Amino acid sequence: MSNHKFQCSSCSSSYEPSPTLLECDRCGSPLNISYVTQLGSDLHPTGWSGHPIPLPLDHQKDLITLGEGNTPVVQLNNVKNRIGAEIYVKQEYMNPTGSFKDRGTSVMISALKSFGINELVEDSSGNAGASLSAYAAMSNMKAHIFVPESAPAPKIGQIQVYGATIHKIPGSRDATTEAAKAFVRNNNLVYASHNLSPFFIEGTKIFAHEVFREFGDHIPEDIVIPVGNGSLYLGMWKGLCELKESNQISRIPRLHFVQTEAVKPIYSAANNVAWDTSMIRETRSGGTAVGSPPRQDQVIDALIRSKGSCTTVTEKELIDWQKFLASKEGIYAEPTSATALAGTEKLIRSGEIGKNSRILVPITGSGLKDDQPN
Amino acid sequence: MSNHKFQCSSCSSSYEPSPTLLECDRCGSPLNISYVTQLGSDLHPTGWSGHPIPLPLDHQKDLITLGEGNTPVVQLNNVKNRIGAEIYVKQEYMNPTGSFKDRGTSVMISALKSFGINELVEDSSGNAGASLSAYAAMSNMKAHIFVPESAPAPKIGQIQVYGATIHKIPGSRDATTEAAKAFVRNNNLVYASHNLSPFFIEGTKIFAHEVFREFGDHIPEDIVIPVGNGSLYLGMWKGLCELKESNQISRIPRLHFVQTEAVKPIYSAANNVAWDTSMIRETRSGGTAVGSPPRQDQVIDALIRSKGSCTTVTEKELIDWQKFLASKEGIYAEPTSATALAGTEKLIRSGEIGKNSRILVPITGSGLKDDQPN
Repeated sequence: MSNHKFQCSSCSSSYEPSPTLLECDRCGSPLNISYVTQLGSDLHPTGWSGHPIPLPLDHQKDLITLGEGNTPVVQLNNVKNRIGAEIYVKQEYMNPTGSFKDRGTSVMISALKSFGINELVEDSSGNAGASLSAYAAMSNMKAHIFVPESAPAPKIGQIQVYGATIHKIPGSRDATTEAAKAFVRNNNLVYASHNLSPFFIEGTKIFAHEVFREFGDHIPEDIVIPVGNGSLYLGMWKGLCELKESNQISRIPRLHFVQTEAVKPIYSAANNVAWDTSMIRETRSGGTAVGSPPRQDQVIDALIRSKGSCTTVTEKELIDWQKFLASKEGIYAEPTSATALAGTEKLIRSGEIGKNSRILVPITGSGLKDDQPN
Repeated sequence: MSNHKFQCSSCSSSYEPSPTLLECDRCGSPLNISYVTQLGSDLHPTGWSGHPIPLPLDHQKDLITLGEGNTPVVQLNNVKNRIGAEIYVKQEYMNPTGSFKDRGTSVMISALKSFGINELVEDSSGNAGASLSAYAAMSNMKAHIFVPESAPAPKIGQIQVYGATIHKIPGSRDATTEAAKAFVRNNNLVYASHNLSPFFIEGTKIFAHEVFREFGDHIPEDIVIPVGNGSLYLGMWKGLCELKESNQISRIPRLHFVQTEAVKPIYSAANNVAWDTSMIRETRSGGTAVGSPPRQDQVIDALIRSKGSCTTVTEKELIDWQKFLASKEGIYAEPTSATALAGTEKLIRSGEIGKNSRILVPITGSGLKDDQPN
């Protein structure tokens, strides 16, 4: 018997956990993990010695790890001088493959491996593809990564060095996803989608538990996260809900999100503004460039329930912040992380976040994985 | 009054700490830090809550940090299957700028800043240059980094993004060092040399203290480190000596080192084999490619006292190990780190390290900062 079930994020239908079930059979919505027993409550993430965190695994030895998580929190003085507010960043690029995705991948791969799965398919030319390839390599699983033919060579390079099989697909980003899904169907394989697998958020939620370990009940009032699929945003939300339900925190911080002007489906939906994928433009912020995020409704629900706000930033603003972070704080972040800082500055200027607030922002990924800013 | 003095590594002459004193006035040898009082014994590295570690600073607020250290230790099963022995790696590439150098830079920059220094000179086209640039940026210091004209564009790029001023010097690696030293003299600046500054090793020694925190008295019997200047090797040695002197460990592990066939001054000296810089050949292992390491005698002294051994590896062997680490363990290491693993395999084959030994190897830097293996 497992300690969890799958539960539909929309109609609440529940299902036995399965490596292949990625959406609700009844309404088609994405699934979440819901814990039903205390089984496995003695499990812990890598290097963790704090309060219990529910994990969807049976045994500690099932946890596949490269040492992800336990990233440091640093206070940024030059950013404070610029924007006024007290600002902390959590250095998520200091994860094994250089991004926060490793948190989700660790738990997802562990769960899939414990189902006996040894071959995986994923579509991502960015952080998720590299992360999945690395964890697949060390756990002797075969990974197929589908990428758009136009994906930048360095990103494909990182995936390749981990030994994954790359499938280059011509056409749009959506064409890549469709090709991956067809390959899954035709070869009867498992689609290890970081967007759809309910296990992924069980890893990213550990981010929230670490923030609590760091700050205790003095968690910053405002947390600002760049959102594409929302896997870190929803992980943060889930972790905070777990902390609230177990009476460990008395208040939930406001969870704000940032997208770019170039790709802003969730921002538009949250503000009842018309937007569709034909309006996608090029952006350096690869992590937020998701035209049709399957968990959009969940992100908006967490936004409303946490009383957060959202904004968008321009390419000029995010590149300016990428340079500022590197040259004034010694943090070489991917453009996606700079999107969050640029958005933070806007939310302070517009009064959504108070000048006296304490703000936490994740530095989601390393600038070394991207083209150099110029 | 300071809690430490400078002490010559050769003739034991001692000096008041100074930001500009980099070698013994009497015999020209490199200097070390020697602690003379318990002042500052309540200081601690970032994120540290273990036993006391002496640091050459007056106040906790003097410690300039980007969240370096506290890197995870991971056991490698596929490497074990290949070489037989039980093997642990410490993920030093999960530091803020992607290498262990951040440990040394944090303490060195902190000490220099507390002397009131605001402008620095360093010569390095690799990890040390990037590390110094990042810490200089966040502490509002101006950094001049001297690099050979032929240094790879990606490495120069990382230094540049942190806002350092790059000085490209034609000719040999030694010409770059000479140009940096001349610039220091002509402009009355501070030479923040990671090879010569005695503060640097006070940061890298924390590596040893973390290994003790992780393993307690079950520290692996054998530790294998790639050596160029030896700043991690000597830091490991110093930290172990501190642990031994304070009776926290009962035995010191054997400290082995690895160089490449292309650049092997310390290996040659340790084995009484003739070698000079005219014999330098090209190598992918940039971190070990130091022709005239100023602390060579100290490295050999630690080798003898710890009963360690040393070996060299070929380019083919190290590139093979870089690929193996990435594709079988999900660790994308710089070639320098692969040099240590390739050396470990050789030391086991030659019987220097027993098949039943437990071995620790640092993964010194990220493969993302280098050219992709092919």
